[in-house]
Amino acid sequence: MINKLCIVGMGLIGGSLARALKVADAVNHVIAVGRDETHLKRAVELGVADSYEMSITHAVTDADVIVVAVPVGSMKSVFSELAGNIKSDAVITDVGSVKGNVVRNAVEVLGDSLSRFVPGHPIAGTEKSGVEASFAELYSGQRVILTPLEETAALATQTITQMWHAAGAEVVSVSVEHHDEVLAATSHLPHVLAYTLVDTLAQMHEHREIFKFAAGGFKDFTRIASSDPKMWHDICLNNRDSLLDMLTRFSSDMSKLTKAIEDEDSEFILKLFTRAKTARDQNC
Amino acid sequence: MINKLCIVGMGLIGGSLARALKVADAVNHVIAVGRDETHLKRAVELGVADSYEMSITHAVTDADVIVVAVPVGSMKSVFSELAGNIKSDAVITDVGSVKGNVVRNAVEVLGDSLSRFVPGHPIAGTEKSGVEASFAELYSGQRVILTPLEETAALATQTITQMWHAAGAEVVSVSVEHHDEVLAATSHLPHVLAYTLVDTLAQMHEHREIFKFAAGGFKDFTRIASSDPKMWHDICLNNRDSLLDMLTRFSSDMSKLTKAIEDEDSEFILKLFTRAKTARDQNC
Repeated sequence: MINKLCIVGMGLIGGSLARALKVADAVNHVIAVGRDETHLKRAVELGVADSYEMSITHAVTDADVIVVAVPVGSMKSVFSELAGNIKSDAVITDVGSVKGNVVRNAVEVLGDSLSRFVPGHPIAGTEKSGVEASFAELYSGQRVILTPLEETAALATQTITQMWHAAGAEVVSVSVEHHDEVLAATSHLPHVLAYTLVDTLAQMHEHREIFKFAAGGFKDFTRIASSDPKMWHDICLNNRDSLLDMLTRFSSDMSKLTKAIEDEDSEFILKLFTRAKTARDQNC
Repeated sequence: MINKLCIVGMGLIGGSLARALKVADAVNHVIAVGRDETHLKRAVELGVADSYEMSITHAVTDADVIVVAVPVGSMKSVFSELAGNIKSDAVITDVGSVKGNVVRNAVEVLGDSLSRFVPGHPIAGTEKSGVEASFAELYSGQRVILTPLEETAALATQTITQMWHAAGAEVVSVSVEHHDEVLAATSHLPHVLAYTLVDTLAQMHEHREIFKFAAGGFKDFTRIASSDPKMWHDICLNNRDSLLDMLTRFSSDMSKLTKAIEDEDSEFILKLFTRAKTARDQNC
């Protein structure tokens, strides 16, 4: 049971965590922190938070667990405000989709609190944003990746593991580097492709007509292009190297397939599509 | 009411049409034709077809409407078998995702029957294949594109329009060229991207680990990569020029975005993602 949970950045991810912990009776009090008072009031109205604060330093003084759920580009400034203002036994975690840069930020500014920082990333979400889109079942049966550092206290990792278990998630630990490589492949690259495709089509002269004939497959394929642009901008820049590596691999493979279509290389095309179908059917 | 409907190629698309027409009481008898007797027997067992035939020429002698629902690469040989063997007032349509090459095939081999051929394409489907995946509601509220030719008799177009209306679909007419350009953008390119992405990941050393951390967004994004490889191979080769044009546009846009990520051009990235989100939210 967490006595006081502070969620910095009360949106889909933080809100769904608060809801899940309340349903599981695993938290006494949730305090929401953010810059937009309207959103914070709404979080209290919805019963997702019990109270709110505009000031991080005020909000965290007696918090037991602090969940930082802001875009990864804003993590460092939040961490700076936590350092020196939290209880000596408080545990900090984050939910950022990139771990390398977030960990570097934490190392730079968290000071003595670094040993109680557990880097985390729930592999769950929808294309929607904001506390109004939050729901208690978001993490049910989903994976949360933790990337504890050498400095991280075992007790801190245990607290965050228990929190995610209470929210219904499965918790796995991997290295920071491995996390960023794997997520570049399965999440960051697909988002970049989806955003680019929709933008390519939107720039075409007859784009209204084009979207009119889009079917269910297109809607599924481009759903992630409705995700929050600022959040994904931050992710691309903060996981730049792994993402560029994946973009290079993908572009190379797409050039080969394009060449095969130009050359009407039937065998190449059929083999690639068959391999892909088999891989997806086996793994998804 | 169609007295005898012959469906050549009884899979997801043909099977769902037969089911929908039966539910709407808009057909008396459905005869299924195909090369795999097991599938045809299964269609009869499921009540999707009333009878089956292995021979196209036998099956079509007294059919009033013939729906050709085979991969687009196989259309020409089916059309050849229809020519000269159908009733003088029978109407032929197809469900191919490409219209240019299918129409060229029809012009080449249908002879006198060309005036009763109505090229068509239901913008509906799932990533599943086969008659067992068929369901009566597939076309409900979906669009069917018809691309009638100058030679097409008005009465033939009317028969096929009524058939799709009875199946719950909305029917629109566009030119052959326009269909192929629009579908290259909204359907053929996304399929190529999804197949390529899954294959890129499947080739990576740690691919099992990678797929393990794929979340809902990845599953949605790659769903279309589970589609029938032969069908999509045929579509790519039969709509080659429009697809290559879209691949060129997309590659150019992706190169620009890759450059922006390399250069950490924050403004470019944020603008592109924001434009894409706005376009998708407005149009999907």
